[in-house]
Amino acid sequence: MSTVLLTGFEPFAGDDANPSWDAVSLVEVSGAELVTQLLPCVFDESIAVLRQAVVAHRPDLVIAVGLAGGRDVITPERVAINLNDARIPDNSGRSPVDEPIVDGGPAAYFTGLPIKAGVAAMRAAGVPAAVSHTAGTFVCNHVFYGLMHLIATERPGMRGGFVHVPYSAEMTAAAGASRPSLPVETIAAGLAVFVETCLKTSDDLRVSAGTLH
Amino acid sequence: MSTVLLTGFEPFAGDDANPSWDAVSLVEVSGAELVTQLLPCVFDESIAVLRQAVVAHRPDLVIAVGLAGGRDVITPERVAINLNDARIPDNSGRSPVDEPIVDGGPAAYFTGLPIKAGVAAMRAAGVPAAVSHTAGTFVCNHVFYGLMHLIATERPGMRGGFVHVPYSAEMTAAAGASRPSLPVETIAAGLAVFVETCLKTSDDLRVSAGTLH
Amino acid sequence: MSTVLLTGFEPFAGDDANPSWDAVSLVEVSGAELVTQLLPCVFDESIAVLRQAVVAHRPDLVIAVGLAGGRDVITPERVAINLNDARIPDNSGRSPVDEPIVDGGPAAYFTGLPIKAGVAAMRAAGVPAAVSHTAGTFVCNHVFYGLMHLIATERPGMRGGFVHVPYSAEMTAAAGASRPSLPVETIAAGLAVFVETCLKTSDDLRVSAGTLH
Amino acid sequence: MSTVLLTGFEPFAGDDANPSWDAVSLVEVSGAELVTQLLPCVFDESIAVLRQAVVAHRPDLVIAVGLAGGRDVITPERVAINLNDARIPDNSGRSPVDEPIVDGGPAAYFTGLPIKAGVAAMRAAGVPAAVSHTAGTFVCNHVFYGLMHLIATERPGMRGGFVHVPYSAEMTAAAGASRPSLPVETIAAGLAVFVETCLKTSDDLRVSAGTLH
Repeated sequence: MSTVLLTGFEPFAGDDANPSWDAVSLVEVSGAELVTQLLPCVFDESIAVLRQAVVAHRPDLVIAVGLAGGRDVITPERVAINLNDARIPDNSGRSPVDEPIVDGGPAAYFTGLPIKAGVAAMRAAGVPAAVSHTAGTFVCNHVFYGLMHLIATERPGMRGGFVHVPYSAEMTAAAGASRPSLPVETIAAGLAVFVETCLKTSDDLRVSAGTLH
Repeated sequence: MSTVLLTGFEPFAGDDANPSWDAVSLVEVSGAELVTQLLPCVFDESIAVLRQAVVAHRPDLVIAVGLAGGRDVITPERVAINLNDARIPDNSGRSPVDEPIVDGGPAAYFTGLPIKAGVAAMRAAGVPAAVSHTAGTFVCNHVFYGLMHLIATERPGMRGGFVHVPYSAEMTAAAGASRPSLPVETIAAGLAVFVETCLKTSDDLRVSAGTLH
Repeated sequence: MSTVLLTGFEPFAGDDANPSWDAVSLVEVSGAELVTQLLPCVFDESIAVLRQAVVAHRPDLVIAVGLAGGRDVITPERVAINLNDARIPDNSGRSPVDEPIVDGGPAAYFTGLPIKAGVAAMRAAGVPAAVSHTAGTFVCNHVFYGLMHLIATERPGMRGGFVHVPYSAEMTAAAGASRPSLPVETIAAGLAVFVETCLKTSDDLRVSAGTLH
Repeated sequence: MSTVLLTGFEPFAGDDANPSWDAVSLVEVSGAELVTQLLPCVFDESIAVLRQAVVAHRPDLVIAVGLAGGRDVITPERVAINLNDARIPDNSGRSPVDEPIVDGGPAAYFTGLPIKAGVAAMRAAGVPAAVSHTAGTFVCNHVFYGLMHLIATERPGMRGGFVHVPYSAEMTAAAGASRPSLPVETIAAGLAVFVETCLKTSDDLRVSAGTLH
């Protein structure tokens, strides 16, 4: 039976909750052993915690999940770039600007997951989703790049990638905000479908998920 | 026991579904008799069907619900204006431009519902919501104005208003779209809370729900 | 020769500038005498200053202009509602909630201007524009309603209305923001076209400018 | 004196104009020889035309400009990825899906331009601008990647990068659309400032221009 490691982030930017962790905590998958890990929203330390979880659990599949506040739908990420550029401080107070994540590492890694098949499966399950081509330059992209670099340099048999999720409906309601959101339960359902699709799909769909810009 | 009439619309603009009706069909309220009615997305005929339902069921409270595709949250409407101005044809093919809904009627009616209390209650229940100050100039505003005019001229003891809902997550997923949405079940839960708040609230909250523009 | 009164607002909400006044200050029209007036962003006082300018200059046409930060294009307003509901304090610190602008006044006034013809003329001149159906519930709607009430009750021969403008490109650049904006000069050019269209148009175009919600 | 090559694209996706070329055609810079080149909105052929212009003019600096319809401000791009994924056909009817731009090329190239200094200079000149971290997966990203690959493999002394521009106000007005836009003249003024900043800046500013996602 495959082992799956799902990670979510702690709250940041003054929020009380982070829907990535709230949803990851609710995910249930059949036919695989699921391990979850909370990551700190801190440069470097987040990758270190992820690495420890990989060493401890030896997962076949790792999916890191983070919040993309303002997005409308669940967005599996296509590409991680070798860049830290923090618009706000991380949870330790650090704000790296224009630093590589890995000195001498490649400029980018593409995801190792069948993201188009995963988006199609989430949509078929009634959960809005779309492929994204930028994970930003903060801790989410940082962890995504760190994960792909770990796979490329140390764990060639492991598969991994990153998924961004919208604000939760619950946080949005509590904040009295008018912004796109989905209930935590819907996000969790989408993540479960995504995990199961990754487990049973080796080659991604050849359908367009491109963007004009 | 109070009787509540909840209406939703049939699909329009080429859609296969209308989340207003999908959600209304799922609403359950305690402590009141609930009657639901599907309205055609047609000028005049929609008001006629609403009126027949009012005559048949003699409700104490009428809440008409419609789709506001593109909005992030559930939005009780504050004001109906005496204007038809159709950007697209209604489901009968008619596109009235700059016509009053009621000849000689007042320019506008304010809602008869405690919309601020209703928004607060939906938020407390984890459902994103906000007050809106425009119901547009299509069939939704038309029905809202027609309902308020009916109350003003013929049914002084009845209370009524209008609520716009976002796209459903299910429609959005099926369309492969990236746009704000909420699951039908979440919308229905929000509407149930709204109905119950209206039933037990006579004076609205005095908190700001204003917009700068 | 006709006399035209154009008003703009002082800065509010912590801004250093208000593009409504910046643009009004640049407007030039041919074939009419143009008077401009700065309005305070204060409930009641704004209407008082507008009234004084009307008394002093006896204009044939009054167009009040205000900022609608976040809108993409110039938006002549269709309807003013009899409601103050301040989300933020005005420049005197007052935040009225759910108060009528005029006790016993009608729920709403429709604009007295040919806004569809004005939008068409701005577009023909290369300036993006669209009709709006809500002027909000803050000082802009307040002044718009006050102006229409003045016309209805005291100045039947005068014509008047309201136009919202986007953020200026200059303010947006200075703020380092990513938000829709137009250069002050473009806004002024649009307003000049709008004024000239109002001067020469008595009956508005019968084309749809409606919204679905 | 330095030679600068500025490119813009032909219209695509059914548009009558492309503000990238409209603006590039208006750019004037002092202290450098400026050459402009129209590129076809066609995979591969666009890179071939760009290469020919580089061979013919031997520029010191190449800035390719493209349309990012829907963006609010001018956005110099930070990173090009080695991926074609066409959501719509290019102007020759081809829609490559999940193909590398250069077989065996690096996953991404970072821009060779001081984009943060360029954004700061545009803002100081009153033109709204911001750094972008995704150029999409269509012909814009394709040309950007092709340019950076040409520099990396054949023209080490040449500098180059890509700038996305919003819809023009003129196109937006003609389309009767409500969407973010800037006048062609404003876009051209911004591009001129950007070119001049690149000419006089070797090391980019160390300020954050990051995004959370």
